[in-house]
Amino acid sequence: MIKRSAPYADILHEVVEKDGILYLAGVTGEDTTADMAGQTRSITAQIDELLAAHGSDKSHLLSVTIYITDMKLKPAMNAVWKEWLSPAQVPARATIGVSDLDGCLIEVVAIAARAG
Amino acid sequence: MIKRSAPYADILHEVVEKDGILYLAGVTGEDTTADMAGQTRSITAQIDELLAAHGSDKSHLLSVTIYITDMKLKPAMNAVWKEWLSPAQVPARATIGVSDLDGCLIEVVAIAARAG
Amino acid sequence: MIKRSAPYADILHEVVEKDGILYLAGVTGEDTTADMAGQTRSITAQIDELLAAHGSDKSHLLSVTIYITDMKLKPAMNAVWKEWLSPAQVPARATIGVSDLDGCLIEVVAIAARAG
Repeated sequence: MIKRSAPYADILHEVVEKDGILYLAGVTGEDTTADMAGQTRSITAQIDELLAAHGSDKSHLLSVTIYITDMKLKPAMNAVWKEWLSPAQVPARATIGVSDLDGCLIEVVAIAARAG
Repeated sequence: MIKRSAPYADILHEVVEKDGILYLAGVTGEDTTADMAGQTRSITAQIDELLAAHGSDKSHLLSVTIYITDMKLKPAMNAVWKEWLSPAQVPARATIGVSDLDGCLIEVVAIAARAG
Repeated sequence: MIKRSAPYADILHEVVEKDGILYLAGVTGEDTTADMAGQTRSITAQIDELLAAHGSDKSHLLSVTIYITDMKLKPAMNAVWKEWLSPAQVPARATIGVSDLDGCLIEVVAIAARAG
């Protein structure tokens, strides 16, 4: 069975779960005028909420793809990332510099496992 | 066991299935001179066929990544997307603006579940 | 249970395994001054090692996303790809042209199955 939650604009669900694996939609910061640290903090907070709604948490992240529009801001992103996650539990990750995130500095796509 | 289908140029299979999860290759429109709506329709038709070949369908999409080269064309893509999918069954999704899709306006990568 | 290996800089693990599926981090060439063939060969060698550490190998690749910064170099990448993989076992794949890979020509993200 497929479990979906947090629908957005008839276009996507923020979380889709199948066989204990959670596929998250691309998450962007709520305030697109915030700097990289601010947008990244907004994203990590949203991911925490989305995972909690499916009985999981950040210690169960498997794979994360981070898209950013300015590679020079990667250190600012990484600083928030390291505040957020325990080194023992960090997922596989890639950071890709792309041309356009519709006005955002960063967008994050995650795959996680349900806890337990 | 891994089930692969629709090989292309000794480089990839269009669908690879493992444990009831289908991983699709990047799908592009068959006519690269078509506009965004036309290329997106070609892609959704191809995805329908690829899923059907593995006993699945568009109601079992889990995660979709959409790469586009011009973010201004996102609404034209979304219009076709909404014609294609029922709001109750839309997957997790991210739309990423990238610099080069080898002459295409859009390329779509999907992960789906086998039906049943 | 989640099995993680090859931690890097407290930021990521190169491989995270859950339920027999291996999620690999973005892999880049060890020598960023090498040409596309050289960087791709370094990546495929690293992927071989990462998969071996989890009891898998290149014949169990399910899905691969290849990011490159210059689409004109795709043929040089493909030549190494075809040397590396048997046509019967190639995964689903997408090649995406992106603007910035932090000084690299290519970065590869893979999902694979554990062998057996």
